[in-house]
Amino acid sequence: MNRTILALTSLVAFGAAAQQTIGLNHDALFPRLERDSVFFSLNAPGARQVSVTGDFSGPMTLGADSLWHAAFPIAGPDLYIYNYNVDGMTVTDPANPYTVRDIAHLFSYFITPGTGYLAGNIPHGSLTREWYHSDKLGMDRRISVYLPAGYNENTDRRYPVFYLLHGMGGDETSWSELGRATYILDNMIASGNAEPMIVVMPNGNARQEAAPGETTEGLYATTMDRSVSPRDSFEGSFGEIIDFIDSNYRTVPDAAHRAVAGLSMGGGHTWRLQQLMPETFGYYGIFSGAVGWKGNPDLMKGDDPSLLPASPLPRLYYIAIGRDDFLYPLNKTFRESLTKAGIPYTYEESGGGHVWTNWRRYLTGFLPLLFK
Amino acid sequence: MNRTILALTSLVAFGAAAQQTIGLNHDALFPRLERDSVFFSLNAPGARQVSVTGDFSGPMTLGADSLWHAAFPIAGPDLYIYNYNVDGMTVTDPANPYTVRDIAHLFSYFITPGTGYLAGNIPHGSLTREWYHSDKLGMDRRISVYLPAGYNENTDRRYPVFYLLHGMGGDETSWSELGRATYILDNMIASGNAEPMIVVMPNGNARQEAAPGETTEGLYATTMDRSVSPRDSFEGSFGEIIDFIDSNYRTVPDAAHRAVAGLSMGGGHTWRLQQLMPETFGYYGIFSGAVGWKGNPDLMKGDDPSLLPASPLPRLYYIAIGRDDFLYPLNKTFRESLTKAGIPYTYEESGGGHVWTNWRRYLTGFLPLLFK
Repeated sequence: MNRTILALTSLVAFGAAAQQTIGLNHDALFPRLERDSVFFSLNAPGARQVSVTGDFSGPMTLGADSLWHAAFPIAGPDLYIYNYNVDGMTVTDPANPYTVRDIAHLFSYFITPGTGYLAGNIPHGSLTREWYHSDKLGMDRRISVYLPAGYNENTDRRYPVFYLLHGMGGDETSWSELGRATYILDNMIASGNAEPMIVVMPNGNARQEAAPGETTEGLYATTMDRSVSPRDSFEGSFGEIIDFIDSNYRTVPDAAHRAVAGLSMGGGHTWRLQQLMPETFGYYGIFSGAVGWKGNPDLMKGDDPSLLPASPLPRLYYIAIGRDDFLYPLNKTFRESLTKAGIPYTYEESGGGHVWTNWRRYLTGFLPLLFK
Repeated sequence: MNRTILALTSLVAFGAAAQQTIGLNHDALFPRLERDSVFFSLNAPGARQVSVTGDFSGPMTLGADSLWHAAFPIAGPDLYIYNYNVDGMTVTDPANPYTVRDIAHLFSYFITPGTGYLAGNIPHGSLTREWYHSDKLGMDRRISVYLPAGYNENTDRRYPVFYLLHGMGGDETSWSELGRATYILDNMIASGNAEPMIVVMPNGNARQEAAPGETTEGLYATTMDRSVSPRDSFEGSFGEIIDFIDSNYRTVPDAAHRAVAGLSMGGGHTWRLQQLMPETFGYYGIFSGAVGWKGNPDLMKGDDPSLLPASPLPRLYYIAIGRDDFLYPLNKTFRESLTKAGIPYTYEESGGGHVWTNWRRYLTGFLPLLFK
């Protein structure tokens, strides 16, 4: 046995021993991308019926290689989520170590080339998970903070701040994980399409200290209703977040250098923050927004005149929604009432519904409009 | 229908719509802890044979409720990992959103009461993922930095630094995720069992910029051999990490306030750093260590006199290993040669093998000995 083979054998033995409880047999089965298609393969030797679910939907067929196979066309560059349904049980892909949690559900995912959702070969910002104290909510609360590349080196420079809010069922990790916000920011700042900025991603659930698993409650089954934020409970405490950020980071603490945006419930928070503190932020983004959020969607009527923005009017009031979104009608009547009242806004309409595919896109569309 | 029920119904409808691709049916099946046992339940309607694998191992039986069940005693407070094997396919628990990656393999996990591995109702430190540049390795590299609670408030205070290294197949996320290091630190600092300190968790794979999925390579199937760090390639660049930390954080930059420890390959890095820069660190921890690490375990002989620590001897030279660890014999001969040479060391021996259960324990045992 020559030396190279010996060394390799030892490493494999070392690897096997080093794991003791771990199996590694994934290389062959990882979902494969080829041109505009994705090829799924699953080793489920005892299964009778297997299908792909999530962003792709269809049956798999058992091949001569004893693996289950399915292929689907890919619509365009994106992060795609999927599960396998094996004889009625929905599972993540055993061959794919990359998963992401959406509320209580785990999905396997992959990212196609050309998205801007992966780390580029460019300068990288940092992401910090830390805690601030809220007197109003009576607890320490976890918050995620992105600092742009160069923040540590350019110690004389002060930066604008963008507050980015999640939806119902989300938490302070949603935008950095499912939303790929840190990658989007790194790439857009490096290409000059976004200003270098601090991005703050708080937990918008007024009754929750932190993401599931990160609190004294331990590991519990996450549900939507644990994360409902009754109207003004979170928004009313927002000044504490701004104070924390302005105290601990080199910010430019004025409205011209402060933006806020959110998706769904976070769009509702954004809408409401404009009314509650109209001189605090210059830029607002309402993505698939629960405009008129009162902790209950039944109470939201887009043509209610009390929903109109307060004075002074923002530099940017950006609204984006998908044509299939269940909040589309609400947003439509709200836009009509804005137009009727002569209040300018920027509007982006996409295909699709109330999904992360759209929220990543809206973030990408919103960032170049900030701090101009 | 009264108002409360109406509101609740609306929220559920909102939740359902808000997800569009998400199913939520987890509450009933989440693994249940009762006294000293764990009860697993799995809804696998089409399965013929199901078992639990990982830290628990045994068959499940189909109950009258059409769910598969198994119960196991729990040895003691710990983080436990498991998978289900369903007709030959190994999957994570569809009812448990908490998973952790070990190399390329995903495990479901749960944590029993009394571990110190969950967030306590105490002040919390922060965790930052950021990047430093390595001239020696020719790339930007990702690094995790824990700052203790109070770091932001006590702006005059300088802190000791503990460098904490992962093993082969690991990366800059291993200690904070599988290792629960941030929770262990928060709890032990709050209880006075550890000094407030900065903890730095670099990526010890000299040929890797960052954890899988965090680089320009995108999402690839992780393997052990991608993460082997040939001898001195990482250790030789360690001064760059120390410079980065001392430049960007309020450290006490001397050996009396600098510690390093690592598991497996990281234990080898720790052993070697003592030889290469004996005046840099005061405290060393070798957990299940690949002492004499040369990138190949065949080349490691514990009684090789060239393995002995360099002068000046450390304030603390801590060795810990499990009786079933495949590196136990290596560590035994190494300890014997230390004794023979009259070099003092602190030794902790546990049951079990080359597993995270032990590494979390060794960290917990090591921290109280630092910076005294």
